[in-house]
Amino acid sequence: MTIHFKNAAIPDSAAPLHMRHVCLAVDGERISYIGEAEPHGAFERTIDCSGALLVPGFVNAHCHSAMTLFRSLGGGLPTQRWLDETILPAEDRLTPELVELSSTWAIAEMIASGTTSFSDMYFFCGATAKAAADAGVKANIARSVVSFDPDEDPAGSSRVKEAIALYDEWNGVGGVKVDFSLHAEYTNVPRTVEYLAKAAADRGAMMQIHLSETKREHDKCAAKYGKTPAAFFDDLGALDGRTVLAHCVHVTPEDIALIAECSASVVHCPRSNLKLGSGVAPLRALLDAGVNVALGTDGAASNNRLSMLDEYTTAALIHPGVAEQADLFTPAELLPLLSENGARAQGREDTGARAVGMKADLVLLDASAPGAYPMLDAADHLAYTASASQVKMTVCDGSVLYENGEYKTIDIEKLRFEMKKATDDFYKRR
Amino acid sequence: MTIHFKNAAIPDSAAPLHMRHVCLAVDGERISYIGEAEPHGAFERTIDCSGALLVPGFVNAHCHSAMTLFRSLGGGLPTQRWLDETILPAEDRLTPELVELSSTWAIAEMIASGTTSFSDMYFFCGATAKAAADAGVKANIARSVVSFDPDEDPAGSSRVKEAIALYDEWNGVGGVKVDFSLHAEYTNVPRTVEYLAKAAADRGAMMQIHLSETKREHDKCAAKYGKTPAAFFDDLGALDGRTVLAHCVHVTPEDIALIAECSASVVHCPRSNLKLGSGVAPLRALLDAGVNVALGTDGAASNNRLSMLDEYTTAALIHPGVAEQADLFTPAELLPLLSENGARAQGREDTGARAVGMKADLVLLDASAPGAYPMLDAADHLAYTASASQVKMTVCDGSVLYENGEYKTIDIEKLRFEMKKATDDFYKRR
Repeated sequence: MTIHFKNAAIPDSAAPLHMRHVCLAVDGERISYIGEAEPHGAFERTIDCSGALLVPGFVNAHCHSAMTLFRSLGGGLPTQRWLDETILPAEDRLTPELVELSSTWAIAEMIASGTTSFSDMYFFCGATAKAAADAGVKANIARSVVSFDPDEDPAGSSRVKEAIALYDEWNGVGGVKVDFSLHAEYTNVPRTVEYLAKAAADRGAMMQIHLSETKREHDKCAAKYGKTPAAFFDDLGALDGRTVLAHCVHVTPEDIALIAECSASVVHCPRSNLKLGSGVAPLRALLDAGVNVALGTDGAASNNRLSMLDEYTTAALIHPGVAEQADLFTPAELLPLLSENGARAQGREDTGARAVGMKADLVLLDASAPGAYPMLDAADHLAYTASASQVKMTVCDGSVLYENGEYKTIDIEKLRFEMKKATDDFYKRR
Repeated sequence: MTIHFKNAAIPDSAAPLHMRHVCLAVDGERISYIGEAEPHGAFERTIDCSGALLVPGFVNAHCHSAMTLFRSLGGGLPTQRWLDETILPAEDRLTPELVELSSTWAIAEMIASGTTSFSDMYFFCGATAKAAADAGVKANIARSVVSFDPDEDPAGSSRVKEAIALYDEWNGVGGVKVDFSLHAEYTNVPRTVEYLAKAAADRGAMMQIHLSETKREHDKCAAKYGKTPAAFFDDLGALDGRTVLAHCVHVTPEDIALIAECSASVVHCPRSNLKLGSGVAPLRALLDAGVNVALGTDGAASNNRLSMLDEYTTAALIHPGVAEQADLFTPAELLPLLSENGARAQGREDTGARAVGMKADLVLLDASAPGAYPMLDAADHLAYTASASQVKMTVCDGSVLYENGEYKTIDIEKLRFEMKKATDDFYKRR
């Protein structure tokens, strides 16, 4: 398919009002032209983007997509009771079928809010990989490994076996890449950390880890090992340029320096961290250290939205607010967090930016409605005005996935019916 | 008009999952029935609310609606430069015509996001009052008074005269009430504070004041008068049950006790306070003291959205996050901030709640779309899942103002055309 996006306003850090107007052409999976003049040749579609903003598809770098089935479950409980009394018992009743359905439901929400690629850490991961491949989105899927027995041989762990089998079956299928995942420091023994880090390295795969999400977790690690979780993983060979650390709310200045030195990525999940009372991650310090910081929604049970623009707005609001400094960030400084840095955290170097030769992952955002107009500064607009409801079109690898409320790769009415039936069954509401 | 909302899920603090299912009937301007059984009689409209949540119309208790013309203007500048270099020069070029147009544009955004009543503090206020009356929404409009000359007779101040003339012309017209307003402590001399407080009291009108929004303002007042802004206003007779204090970010524990004792209302504006780097208001302490706390969006230049659900989500996220306590609020504790407390801050005792005999101000929120489903707890859903895009219908005084994307009292295409033309002219973009 060839598409010509004409009269497109695109964000540009260096331009006045942080935007410029261009024509952008797509040929097959990739961007073939960006320029002020109209592109040569004929196009199967020409889309007039007047009054809209054209941005790279968003990359949701940390999600547990199947948790849409638990949206608003246990709301208001303190974190430990929320986990122990509602989430863990509910997860125990999940099936691969429910995971595929709930993941597809999550993908429908993500596509409609401009996300074209997401990273997922969960179980029954083949079901989530199938959901992503069927919907035509990109996804980095990882089987989350936990291990509690220091004497267990990691090679014999059913979870480790599942992680490797997932890699063998799904890596490279459609837009799916398979990552590895250590759930966290407090849920793993050192022997398994070393084993899985090597398994990931042998395959050149990324490694997703929850790190220093809560003060309790951070402090207990210090008490147990005499070091922080970041140092724990580093000492076991699990911290390098392929490592993706979710949360990092309670990392120390030394941790930040270590993460930067190892070229690991951090995924900032502000809405989940705030809702669960985990705290406010040191975003300014992470950026100052040169860390590649991406954004993630976390699961719908602790957010409850899977909208990257909501996550971005929250990040753009909370840090200047808590620091009591309106210009804590330059207006354009956070832009790479929406797409480019997430793509790097997924090991997808040809994704997440807007340049000729890159994958054509694009979102067209209406900026003409009450609530969206006027857009007097594109960076400020993206940070504080734009929202999921303004997404007019989502394109992944040059294919239109969503346009003006219609899904192109998902039978939304069938999905809605099945999701309602499954939810009613799961919660015995009939 | 008579309307029967059937199968309506309504939030209920005391019910399981914080909701119950009812039938709700509207007769003319008021709610005539709420109950589990179907209401008797015939209705001009019957609306099946299955899969949706029915809540009171939101009350935006602090706004400068005409500032939609400045949305995303000066984004990223430090607060003082943002104000001095962009906002003040732009405001100097406003006309009554531009204020009416930009206020109507704001009202369109508010109606579409479920707001049925707003409080406004600005200038050229007759234009905003006309916009509100024409659109059929409720509004408490106040001419913001500033005074810098301690020798000036307040009775001769053009601003004070405008405030009184506004009251005489617009109070009680349609859904408009006229409040008085002292812009802030740092923008007023004591003599004018006393004079305007008496003018408001004589008329039984509310008084809107910006209070302790920034640390700088709070500290400078202490240095100048040896007391806090709250004590300053109290000593001049301007703090009582008709006073509405916007922001209160930097109030002291003594201020909070004073505000509670005087039965003044506080309007929490979290998104504006965060974006401008003002800080995080002590919401938990204000609620603990028994203060009537409402929510407000502030103007679109410092937010940039006029959506109460965004404001509510931000409040529900930031306080547990900063306190590092997930259960800082009970799930139902914040619900009155969306409507009921705002109505009280407007002196509209028959508004903002869902009970027979009250004004029929209602919002129907879809809870069936990806991103909205499932709704396993209504309080958690309203705080973290619901968003402006889920508003299916907005009803004010029993009249439908907005339904499935269509405005009933605003010619949106004409308005859009005029707003674009005015914006292009204002910023010389042609």
